[in-house]
Amino acid sequence: MNTATETARFAGLIGQGVEAIETPALVVDAEAVNRNMQRMAEFAEKHRLRLRPHAKLHKSADIARLQMQAGAVGICVQTVGEAEALAAGGVNDIFISNEVVCPRKLRRVAGLAQMLKGRGGRLAIAVDSSEGVDYLAQAMALTSAVIDVFIEINVGQNRCGVAPGAAAVALVQRIVPRPTLRYAGLHAYHGGAQHLRSVAERRAAIAEAAQHVAVTRDALAEAGFAPPLITGAGTGTFNLEAASGLWGEIQPGSFLFMDADYARNERDPAQPAFEQALFIKSQVISVAADHVVCDAGHKSHAVDCGLPLVHALPGQPDLTYANGGDEHGILRPATPGGALPALGDTVWLIPGHCDPTVNLHDMMVAVRGGLAEGTVSAVVRVDARGA
Amino acid sequence: MNTATETARFAGLIGQGVEAIETPALVVDAEAVNRNMQRMAEFAEKHRLRLRPHAKLHKSADIARLQMQAGAVGICVQTVGEAEALAAGGVNDIFISNEVVCPRKLRRVAGLAQMLKGRGGRLAIAVDSSEGVDYLAQAMALTSAVIDVFIEINVGQNRCGVAPGAAAVALVQRIVPRPTLRYAGLHAYHGGAQHLRSVAERRAAIAEAAQHVAVTRDALAEAGFAPPLITGAGTGTFNLEAASGLWGEIQPGSFLFMDADYARNERDPAQPAFEQALFIKSQVISVAADHVVCDAGHKSHAVDCGLPLVHALPGQPDLTYANGGDEHGILRPATPGGALPALGDTVWLIPGHCDPTVNLHDMMVAVRGGLAEGTVSAVVRVDARGA
Repeated sequence: MNTATETARFAGLIGQGVEAIETPALVVDAEAVNRNMQRMAEFAEKHRLRLRPHAKLHKSADIARLQMQAGAVGICVQTVGEAEALAAGGVNDIFISNEVVCPRKLRRVAGLAQMLKGRGGRLAIAVDSSEGVDYLAQAMALTSAVIDVFIEINVGQNRCGVAPGAAAVALVQRIVPRPTLRYAGLHAYHGGAQHLRSVAERRAAIAEAAQHVAVTRDALAEAGFAPPLITGAGTGTFNLEAASGLWGEIQPGSFLFMDADYARNERDPAQPAFEQALFIKSQVISVAADHVVCDAGHKSHAVDCGLPLVHALPGQPDLTYANGGDEHGILRPATPGGALPALGDTVWLIPGHCDPTVNLHDMMVAVRGGLAEGTVSAVVRVDARGA
Repeated sequence: MNTATETARFAGLIGQGVEAIETPALVVDAEAVNRNMQRMAEFAEKHRLRLRPHAKLHKSADIARLQMQAGAVGICVQTVGEAEALAAGGVNDIFISNEVVCPRKLRRVAGLAQMLKGRGGRLAIAVDSSEGVDYLAQAMALTSAVIDVFIEINVGQNRCGVAPGAAAVALVQRIVPRPTLRYAGLHAYHGGAQHLRSVAERRAAIAEAAQHVAVTRDALAEAGFAPPLITGAGTGTFNLEAASGLWGEIQPGSFLFMDADYARNERDPAQPAFEQALFIKSQVISVAADHVVCDAGHKSHAVDCGLPLVHALPGQPDLTYANGGDEHGILRPATPGGALPALGDTVWLIPGHCDPTVNLHDMMVAVRGGLAEGTVSAVVRVDARGA
């Protein structure tokens, strides 16, 4: 929903206390977000890496611009619609870190490249097929812009990407003769490694990914196509890509907000400590003998990485969350005989997975001064929600 | 996202072939929807039941009005925001089949009741606590409208609702002195029963629910408060509530679109046969040796009731869908050695769970003439998405 009434209701929250936020609502701790942003910027600077955070997390042009002001070179997105929405919000350097092979969509990509060129910005995209290169070149031929093209290689996730080695050379050979395509390097992201629980497992996965990257880089260099840049990495592993010396750019997104699933990872001491900054504010709407019901179900938070955790503020009871359907959560004491909240009480949840949770909301409410007694400092539109 | 560009892009589809629909997109088979709607209307008429379909399925004012033209007395929604969005779209008879205890939200409820009264419509809401009644009465005191109040009883789901029997009497006694509240009856919905796989399990669950309803009805009648109406039931069980003779109104929603999860239920021959009418159109964007990748991940479809099924049209290979993350699905042959689609091919998916899948999309594309060679007949806005 995106009615004027709804927008006005959110805008009216600014300056009010947390209690004024109607539930269920997506709330970000603005101070924690800023600290997370700063920590990542410092990490990237210290390791002399380009930082291109993934905006599929927040889908917000305002946040993307804040990240770029804090040192990011640009942002990643995953879809053409996300790129369009964030460009419309003033973001000028965008990498679509995914394959697009639909000629209709590629015409939108070309139009966006032209628009960003006119603003002094640039657009990049990933490819993993010769057809993808051809379709992209056909669409770009209608513009006077040049698009950066990264070849995605499969570094262990077994999703998209060409096999490491010679296959990338063939693609580069198809790219370089095209005047509107610029061979920009390799996109090497191992999504599956991000959520491996132990540091040792993540180290092993990225060591293997690095081997695939090195093999491909060497094959390209031998053919005269040394990759200008290797980009990739996520919140679970970015320090490992950084330590490898192969990647020149990192793309983590989730570190900004964090979630219950990342909290289940064994922390790598080589990473900065990121704080949980994304919460669902919910309210107890029904009380039974052995449980209470809150108004946040899986239309308020994504469940692909598990159910939310209850974030008990000081003085609040420890609770467990069970699925109550689309609009309800069932809360029970975390320990037998433990206390339950009362009807009308606020219950804070930590979503299982941040990206698709944000995607369920049109607005994020930013709070300063803590969840208990803070004040709404901003209302942030999720510009690319559903895109 | 809800930009003018996006809206224009969807509007431009009308009259075009299915191939013009960019992916991932939510597509409804308009003819199947109409048949499902007709079948349910006939069922309700034959059993002399009021039909109040749950609009949490489609969240669309256009579809709600079509349902009312086909005989529904009104619609159910689950949240205040849904009620507001559908009322804004011209729906005049709405039951919020859920508890609302937040005074701020109850002021919105009161405002909506006033607005609907002005249009000759009416608003109803569920309660399960004395505080809920009091807060509602306080909010309604600011209006000249009357709101219908249904007491929700717990008929076996163990979520919201007062215990069967005397507790409902106490709530009615709190409602009847309030001039702006009208005691309208009982809301008795067993969500957990809808997805029990066997007919026998569903029969047993609704037999137990009916006992709870009967006990409560008798206690109310004895106290002089015989319920004017008992409302409830969903797509999995509505014929059982109908057969009990207790319910006077049924609230099924999902029958209109259906989903992979309902398809896993053993069919009850006492129900009309509903057709699958909701699909995700996706495209193959990457091809590997043993799998292909499509552009529909769990930002395109809800996974709370499992992953989508692949809907192979005649001549298309049988495939299985594995989770590929937020924006990707991994497709493999359903049988070893089976064929895979080619890069750029269309792959149709049946979502695991219809309601929260619709909630991920701003628009539904309605098609006539089948998925293979049909034409876009309408673009339906999901008015209450995210509400």
